[in-house]
Amino acid sequence: MSVEIKVSGLVIKRLPRYYRYLTNLKQMGITRVTSSDLSKKIGVTPSQVRQDFFNFGGFGMQGYGYDVEFLHQEIGKILGLNEMNTMVIIGAGNLGQALAKHENFEKRSFKTIGIFDTRDDIIGEQIRGIEIMHFGSLSDFVKNNHVDIAIITVPKTSACEVLDTIIKLGIKGIWNFAPIDLVGPGEVEIENIHLSDSLMVLGYNMKKKPFTQM
Amino acid sequence: MSVEIKVSGLVIKRLPRYYRYLTNLKQMGITRVTSSDLSKKIGVTPSQVRQDFFNFGGFGMQGYGYDVEFLHQEIGKILGLNEMNTMVIIGAGNLGQALAKHENFEKRSFKTIGIFDTRDDIIGEQIRGIEIMHFGSLSDFVKNNHVDIAIITVPKTSACEVLDTIIKLGIKGIWNFAPIDLVGPGEVEIENIHLSDSLMVLGYNMKKKPFTQM
Repeated sequence: MSVEIKVSGLVIKRLPRYYRYLTNLKQMGITRVTSSDLSKKIGVTPSQVRQDFFNFGGFGMQGYGYDVEFLHQEIGKILGLNEMNTMVIIGAGNLGQALAKHENFEKRSFKTIGIFDTRDDIIGEQIRGIEIMHFGSLSDFVKNNHVDIAIITVPKTSACEVLDTIIKLGIKGIWNFAPIDLVGPGEVEIENIHLSDSLMVLGYNMKKKPFTQM
Repeated sequence: MSVEIKVSGLVIKRLPRYYRYLTNLKQMGITRVTSSDLSKKIGVTPSQVRQDFFNFGGFGMQGYGYDVEFLHQEIGKILGLNEMNTMVIIGAGNLGQALAKHENFEKRSFKTIGIFDTRDDIIGEQIRGIEIMHFGSLSDFVKNNHVDIAIITVPKTSACEVLDTIIKLGIKGIWNFAPIDLVGPGEVEIENIHLSDSLMVLGYNMKKKPFTQM
């Protein structure tokens, strides 16, 4: 009998951090790691680490810790990093170009295969060998190429119109950098990035006035 | 007698999201909001919302909800948004320029006052009226201007050297976009941004293969 387990979003958010830490350990030639060492790095308790992994079957910890290579591989599979995900970038401004140049996405199996904009003067330019095409040709592009994810890096004012087009074209994943919370139909996954949230957290931590209660 | 309360990092991370939602409510002319409505938007239980706020004294919820204007103001104060924070950007590549142009930071009281790079061909250029200066002149700039936060948008290979310089100059907050976990002395707050983490979460959610256990 199989039982479906709903895994909490907080656990999912920790997986990339485990994965990054395990990548570093592998590079340093470390072969085993304890839940205690993992917990210090991630900022949770050792028991939370074991609970996190238990959601996925436990990864067979022995008395002396987890096998780094195996754990790295399994978490990678859960995150879908064993298959290449294809992406298009909508908006070739500074942020769009910065993301197109970002070296780490492809290492993590997220490959940019097209960049789109509406400004005629930059159409045809290349970024890391990827051509900037006109947004009007996105529809044809999607017919001829499998696209998993669209990255939205257009101004706030165009974001909703772009979202509409993308959804109609059947793209199922959206990574949105326009400063607006985009919402789509249930079958479309949207990850809204709010850079200023993390800036506010930094501001808070810098001041860290301990709150006093009467 | 006053008691210091240590507020959990998870609560702090929710504050910007409450703040953004309350900003939207204010713009829409909404004057009161219940913990139930807040909880739906933030994705926690109503009881968690009340617990979150209780860390800061509770914000005086009445039977019919919280006062939007008051709650917005108080959370803003906790995040330090009632005082302007000054920032410099180190690295005027695409990402540095995109952040310099980002309209929302200044609205949230985070103002960029200088941009620094080492590439002679762009020194003297202006972005939103802010001059790109040589990294060698950062020391003089910091002597003459109060700088709260340095944003690091240089390649991974220069990040540690840049961090060293920034720390020696006495800057206490660092927002790091170089794809490496920077660590500083205890008195320096560092927020490391890993964009690919959120991409991996998106990848996971898109696939959301329910995990089956025997």
